[in-house]
Amino acid sequence: MSTKNKLAKKPINSPSFFIGRGGNDGIISFGSGQPDLVPPKEIFKNLENNRLFQYGLIQGELNLRQLLSKEYPHASCENFVITNGASEALDLAMRVLATEPGPQKVLLCRPYYYSYPFNVRLAQMEPVYTDLQDGRINLKDFKEKIKHVKAVLINSPSNPTGMVEEINTLKEIEKLSRKLKVWVISDEVYKDLIYGRKNYIIKGPRVITINSFSKTYAMCGLRVGYLWTPDKNFVQKVIDMKVHTSMNTNIMGQEMSVAAMQAPKSYIKQQVKIWHQRRDLIYKGLNQLGFKVRKPEGAFYVLPYIKNSNRVVSELFYKYKVIVYDGTWFGAPDHIRLSYALDVSKITEGLGRIKEFLKDKQDWLD
Amino acid sequence: MSTKNKLAKKPINSPSFFIGRGGNDGIISFGSGQPDLVPPKEIFKNLENNRLFQYGLIQGELNLRQLLSKEYPHASCENFVITNGASEALDLAMRVLATEPGPQKVLLCRPYYYSYPFNVRLAQMEPVYTDLQDGRINLKDFKEKIKHVKAVLINSPSNPTGMVEEINTLKEIEKLSRKLKVWVISDEVYKDLIYGRKNYIIKGPRVITINSFSKTYAMCGLRVGYLWTPDKNFVQKVIDMKVHTSMNTNIMGQEMSVAAMQAPKSYIKQQVKIWHQRRDLIYKGLNQLGFKVRKPEGAFYVLPYIKNSNRVVSELFYKYKVIVYDGTWFGAPDHIRLSYALDVSKITEGLGRIKEFLKDKQDWLD
Repeated sequence: MSTKNKLAKKPINSPSFFIGRGGNDGIISFGSGQPDLVPPKEIFKNLENNRLFQYGLIQGELNLRQLLSKEYPHASCENFVITNGASEALDLAMRVLATEPGPQKVLLCRPYYYSYPFNVRLAQMEPVYTDLQDGRINLKDFKEKIKHVKAVLINSPSNPTGMVEEINTLKEIEKLSRKLKVWVISDEVYKDLIYGRKNYIIKGPRVITINSFSKTYAMCGLRVGYLWTPDKNFVQKVIDMKVHTSMNTNIMGQEMSVAAMQAPKSYIKQQVKIWHQRRDLIYKGLNQLGFKVRKPEGAFYVLPYIKNSNRVVSELFYKYKVIVYDGTWFGAPDHIRLSYALDVSKITEGLGRIKEFLKDKQDWLD
Repeated sequence: MSTKNKLAKKPINSPSFFIGRGGNDGIISFGSGQPDLVPPKEIFKNLENNRLFQYGLIQGELNLRQLLSKEYPHASCENFVITNGASEALDLAMRVLATEPGPQKVLLCRPYYYSYPFNVRLAQMEPVYTDLQDGRINLKDFKEKIKHVKAVLINSPSNPTGMVEEINTLKEIEKLSRKLKVWVISDEVYKDLIYGRKNYIIKGPRVITINSFSKTYAMCGLRVGYLWTPDKNFVQKVIDMKVHTSMNTNIMGQEMSVAAMQAPKSYIKQQVKIWHQRRDLIYKGLNQLGFKVRKPEGAFYVLPYIKNSNRVVSELFYKYKVIVYDGTWFGAPDHIRLSYALDVSKITEGLGRIKEFLKDKQDWLD
C-alpha cells in the first residue's frame, strides 16, 4: 500500500494533522509557522553545566528576566514569568484571568490564531468575536463588544492575516482598557517580524504582554516564551499556578535564550530581510495566480481567498504534496493560510504546484 | 541590612518560598526533592543539531516513545505523551478527566504531594481524602470512598512519606478500578528509587501512569516527563489539549532523555546505592535525636513527627540556616518533611544543627 493511499483515508480537520510533517517525501509545506532559519550560533555555549539540570525559579531564571526587562520601558525583572512557549503563557494567563472578577467572556478578533478559542474555553470562559474589516479591527464594533467582557486578546502582527494594527487603534484600545478596567492580552510573538514601521507595544496597568523566542530566534522546538505585566499581583498568581502545572521552564532553553538575546542585533535584521524577500515573492506569486489577497505587513503568513477551502487543503496535500491550512480553522472560511517560512526555491515550487491544481478551478477564486 | 533581617520579615507558607534557595550562604537544604547527583554523561552528545530547535510532534518524539514502550508490558509508542515534567502530565490528565463522565471528585491519600489538591481544583474538580494508616492505604476506608469518585491518585513510592504500598493493596486497587470503572492515576516518579523489592506497576484499562526523567536521571531542570495509558482515546484527548496549552515538550530535553535511557543501567543502580546509604544515615540520625519516624522504603523523603511544625520550619531556617518543609503543606500537620537528596557531609551537618535547635524543645518530639 502506498503512502498516498494510507494518507488518503484520513480527513484533515485541524492543524494538528500536519504538525511534524513536511520537509520530507517531496512535500512542500506552507503549513506550520516554523522558521526554516537557524538560531544564533551563540546559543551553543556552556551547555555542559550541571546547573542546567536542577530545578530553577518557577518565575524563570533571573539573568533572562533582567535582559527582558531592558526591552520594555518601565519593566523590572519581577514583572516577568518565563513559560513553555507563548502557548503556556496564554494558557496560564487565561486560567488566572478566569479567577478575576468580571464577566467570564473574552473578546477575540476574527480571524484568530487557531488556539485562541480553545484557550478561552479551557479556562472555563466563553469567547466572543469581533470580525476584522479589511484585515483590521472595526473600532465601532470593538467598542461595543469590549463593554461586556473581562479581557480582549490582541495579536498584531497577526497570525493568520499577517496584518499589523494601526497605532491609533492600539492607543484607543489602551484607553478603553483603562476606562473600562478590561484586561488586554497582547500576543506579540511576531513583534520583531514587521516590514514597515516598528512594532507598537500596547501599554497599561491591565496589559499582559505575551512573547516568545521561537519566531525571533528560530527556536520553536525549545519552547521558551514569557508573559509580562505591570500588575505584580497578577504575576504572583501566575507563579502560584505554574508551580503546580509545570514548575520551572526548562533551564537549558532559558540559558540558550539568554545567549540568543546577547547575540549581535544584526541577527534579527538579517532575518527580517529574508522574511521581507519571501513576503514579496509569495505575494506577487499569489497575485499572478489570480488570488484575491492582502499584502502581509508582518509575521510570515498570508491568507488568500478561495472557495471550498477544506477541499483545497485536502487535494493540495494528497494530490500535489503541498501543505496549506484551512482558513476555517482560524475563523476565516473560504480562505487558506500559507506560511512563507520556507526557502524561496520551495516557495516557487509550491506556487507552481498550486498553479497546476488551479487549472480547472479558476472560478474558486472569484 | 543583613540578609537574615531581610528574610526574617517573610512568613513561610509554602514550598515555593524555598524553591531556588539552598546550597548557598551556608544553608543546608532538606527542602526541595532535587537530586544533587549528576545526569549520565551520555546526554551531552549531538546537541548542536538544528532539528532540536524545530517544532516536534505534540505527542513527543517517536524515538523516545519507542524506548519508553519497552519499559512497560503491552505498551506501544502510541500510548505515550511526553510532557513538561510529571507536573504537566498531572495537570493535563486532570483537565482531561474533568471532561469524562462521572462525579467531579478525585480521591487522594493523605499525606499527599503538595500539588495534588491544587491539580484537582485547577481542573474544576474536588479533592476528597483517605488518611494513610501507619503510612499505608487503609483499604476499608479506601473501598468506601472510591465508590463516590471519578479517579484516585496513587503515589508509591510516596512523596512525602517515603513509603511503598504493599503489592496486594495495589492489586486490590486494580480490581476496584476495573469493577467500579474508576480511573487510577499512578504517579510513579520514584519507581526506580526503591530499596527493598522492585516497584509494582499498577495496570488496567483505566490506569494512567505518570513518570519523569527528573529523579531517575537527575534531570529536574530539563522538565521532561510523560504519561501513558492503554486507553488511546484518552491519549488523543491529552494531545488535543496540549496542542493549545504548550505544544511539544522541548525537543532538546527529549533528545537528552533518549540518551539517558541508553546509558548503562549501572547508572541507576549506582544512584540507588547512594540513596540507600543516605536513607540509612538520616534515619539513624533522626532516631538518635529522639524523633518518632518511619523508615523510608523508597524515594528520598522522611517525615518525622514534631509539634509546632510551622515554627520549626521558620526557626530552623532563620536561626540555623536549615531548610525543612512543613508537613502541613502535605496534609501532615505536626510533621516535617526532609529530603535527603544531599551529600552525607551535609546531612550530618544539618542533623547537628537540628540537634542544637532541639536542645530546649525535647517535649516537641513527644
